[in-house]
Amino acid sequence: MSGRRSGGRRGRQLAEANDPPKRKVDYRNLRNPFPPAPAFTDDRVQAIHEAALTVLETLGIKVLLPEARRLFAAGGARVDEDSEMVFIGRDIAMAAVDSAPKVIPLRAGARHRDLELSLGSMIFQPGAGAPHATDLERGRRPGTLRDFRELVQLTQHFDALHMVPPLIEPQDVPPHLRHYAMTEAVLTQSDKLPGVYARGTPQVMDCFEMVRDFRGLSDDDFMAESHCYTIINTNSPRQIDIPMAQGLIDFSRAGQVIIVTPFTLMGAMAPITVAGALTLSHAEALAAITLTQLVRPGAPVTYGTFTSNVDMKSGAPAFGTPEQVKASLGSGQLARLLGLPWRCAAGSAANINDAQAAHETEISAWGAVLAGASIIIHSAGWIEGGLSVSYEKLITDMEMVQVFAELCAETPATDADIALEALAEIQPGGHFFGSAHTMERYETAFYAPLVADWSNFGTWTERGAIDANTRATGIWKSILGDFKPPEHGDDRLGHLTDFIARRSAEGGAPPES
Amino acid sequence: MSGRRSGGRRGRQLAEANDPPKRKVDYRNLRNPFPPAPAFTDDRVQAIHEAALTVLETLGIKVLLPEARRLFAAGGARVDEDSEMVFIGRDIAMAAVDSAPKVIPLRAGARHRDLELSLGSMIFQPGAGAPHATDLERGRRPGTLRDFRELVQLTQHFDALHMVPPLIEPQDVPPHLRHYAMTEAVLTQSDKLPGVYARGTPQVMDCFEMVRDFRGLSDDDFMAESHCYTIINTNSPRQIDIPMAQGLIDFSRAGQVIIVTPFTLMGAMAPITVAGALTLSHAEALAAITLTQLVRPGAPVTYGTFTSNVDMKSGAPAFGTPEQVKASLGSGQLARLLGLPWRCAAGSAANINDAQAAHETEISAWGAVLAGASIIIHSAGWIEGGLSVSYEKLITDMEMVQVFAELCAETPATDADIALEALAEIQPGGHFFGSAHTMERYETAFYAPLVADWSNFGTWTERGAIDANTRATGIWKSILGDFKPPEHGDDRLGHLTDFIARRSAEGGAPPES
Repeated sequence: MSGRRSGGRRGRQLAEANDPPKRKVDYRNLRNPFPPAPAFTDDRVQAIHEAALTVLETLGIKVLLPEARRLFAAGGARVDEDSEMVFIGRDIAMAAVDSAPKVIPLRAGARHRDLELSLGSMIFQPGAGAPHATDLERGRRPGTLRDFRELVQLTQHFDALHMVPPLIEPQDVPPHLRHYAMTEAVLTQSDKLPGVYARGTPQVMDCFEMVRDFRGLSDDDFMAESHCYTIINTNSPRQIDIPMAQGLIDFSRAGQVIIVTPFTLMGAMAPITVAGALTLSHAEALAAITLTQLVRPGAPVTYGTFTSNVDMKSGAPAFGTPEQVKASLGSGQLARLLGLPWRCAAGSAANINDAQAAHETEISAWGAVLAGASIIIHSAGWIEGGLSVSYEKLITDMEMVQVFAELCAETPATDADIALEALAEIQPGGHFFGSAHTMERYETAFYAPLVADWSNFGTWTERGAIDANTRATGIWKSILGDFKPPEHGDDRLGHLTDFIARRSAEGGAPPES
Repeated sequence: MSGRRSGGRRGRQLAEANDPPKRKVDYRNLRNPFPPAPAFTDDRVQAIHEAALTVLETLGIKVLLPEARRLFAAGGARVDEDSEMVFIGRDIAMAAVDSAPKVIPLRAGARHRDLELSLGSMIFQPGAGAPHATDLERGRRPGTLRDFRELVQLTQHFDALHMVPPLIEPQDVPPHLRHYAMTEAVLTQSDKLPGVYARGTPQVMDCFEMVRDFRGLSDDDFMAESHCYTIINTNSPRQIDIPMAQGLIDFSRAGQVIIVTPFTLMGAMAPITVAGALTLSHAEALAAITLTQLVRPGAPVTYGTFTSNVDMKSGAPAFGTPEQVKASLGSGQLARLLGLPWRCAAGSAANINDAQAAHETEISAWGAVLAGASIIIHSAGWIEGGLSVSYEKLITDMEMVQVFAELCAETPATDADIALEALAEIQPGGHFFGSAHTMERYETAFYAPLVADWSNFGTWTERGAIDANTRATGIWKSILGDFKPPEHGDDRLGHLTDFIARRSAEGGAPPES
């Protein structure tokens, strides 16, 4: 059993990161193994839901895009063009919930990467949307295309990460060309479901075309199922801005899945109470979902929330707090009331990958898991409340994500597992190291850690007293060093390159705001 | 809202550690808010239970103490004196389960520290039983009485820690006098329920007398309820040694609560499978519980387990693994089958308080919480698989424990919390910082972090880029610097001092083995 150990600590870690494990656990299609935990009694969930419908009906939502207001009006909502306010009757909102699909197939670049999005599915994404990247070797810096590409490769490497979000912002690529570079990196370095920003119709149409052609799809095939996704944040309180409204329309028309996510920090852009913040978040989510169904009944859309609190002394956002957990649990109850798949988030406000960072991500991730979230974003690497993605934290958090994935697997309890024979064989005070029951199973019985070092203090000290963060540096460098992009035809790559060259020459597509 | 901020980072942290918070949440009597999560189907839980009864009946348990074997024999078990094996019929074991109390009142040094131990209670203990103490200022060292005293003071400080275990071993006190020094420190520095080692009758009787007299109790009052507790580990597989068997007898006779805890590492002293390890652990726990009830029907005893896996490459114990979580969930099912309160554990095998340490403690603690454990030991400070208690980790883990305590509190969702008025008051794109709804609640709405620093990267860097571990050093030093022991009469202290002086002069009481 000690035969596999080789060389020093670093050598062993790297070997472990690269060797194909004997133990094969399918981390690709996870179903949440935990009973959902509630924050509220059922009658208070209903009260929050009713209050949100009252918000939509009587207080209204400001919708900045004229086309969206026209769609709402055509769907029966009362629209005040002067104030840009839209008042959505509860019958309209609930009809939209009824027509939204409850199970959404997601088509990736390879069939084993396809996903099914529903209540009960458990899909992990790494941290997303950060302006900065950081690692122990190169320090904290504005994100670059190289960082983005590397982080996509790390996302591709881990089976327990299921979608590729816009991890960081490649600020060295000009905004009118950035979506080409990002989509190119995601398509060529990963065969997982790509995320696309909704930054105006021209960029979105470029991205749809790139995904469609790289996947070798006809227009009809592309629109028949979701081949990419976007995240739509409302501008809380009670506002949907132009690119977000346009995204809701464009993605719904094209049948590409929309993950609706009001970002409601309690005490800042939302009421200070969990119940109040969720009332607002629920109303905004329903408004966005309603628009998608007015565009195209049956358009794939998820419910979602990102509700945490601020530090009331400084106004700074906080994550991994008990209030965030409670908001996640309450959102899960609201999602189940609607019957829709939904998105929740982990997260940390720590500035480095220290004990605070790990605790905050764990607490918020467990909150999302126990809330029954279908998609858990920011589950690895996200620090500074989203201002950086840390390469090391991505690795150390993956230990947590992989443990969640392991917990989805059944715990065998056949008579052979109960092991009465082995128990009879080993005498009192003996040990099971060499028993037949152990020998048959020892290579595959246990999860092999990604970054944890279980050596004792003396051995660990002799090997250089290397902490988890520093070990993580070795691991991500090893993964990147060995990275092989998934197979795809040269013709597709050539076509993609040509498309980007042509569109860039035509001036690209600046983001809209 | 920014008025309360003062001075630099360090100053603020220390102030926060000391100021009485405006927000008062009762962390003292916690009920687990989560639905218990299963590892097995009900029929396989029953199969494990039946297999464990078969182990007791046909394979037997080796019991090294003659008096314990006599008690088993008198209770109807078949005893083979030559092999010291005891074979316990399932009717005897299940009669013991029936007579064991399902609700155990625990009497501390002050009424607000009393506890009720049952299925559903959630009682936290810090790390226990470590030979070493470690902190960033003084380094890692064999535990001393000073360390023990300080760690008792830290345990006393936090309301969310409910019992005082033997955190570390004060190795500078000779073994025959150590129980005096430890019990003196626990009684004088804390009014929480004291733990007592079962290291032979003479030490145990000394400790009972110290606790009884310091609490001002008659013999009858002392024996009528639990005023201290002990942990009984079996020697897995299938063995109960002399001090453990003697502890089961002594504590049962005196009516002091016993926390039964087989320590079964999968692949080492237990089968490599979760189901097999739990079969063994369950059998051993039932054997120990049976002995308590043969001594005195109704004697207060809990079920318990400490089951994790080893690293099959090195044999080193691992904690915070998916296998540990699954074992905890399965143990919870077995405890609920018996209807007994039970003890589970968090833990980490990391060698320092890094991201690995935080992740492992979080994962194992969530496992214990979701398993519905009544007592969760090693929830703060325990590293190196129990070879050290870290002062800094005790502080950073307390953030997690306090979040668990916060999650026990109801999430208010009255109409005022739902906040329709505030939602109507704040216009689209506005913020809730200054709203009446916020102003009424901002000082008490949110959990105030113990060690988390939510300042942004720039501010955090200006303040010295201090990580959570270093902040934790400041926090424990501040707590110790300001520590005031709970009130107790001078006469009781004098009596305790006299007792210890007299017993020490008489030669003390060496531990038995």
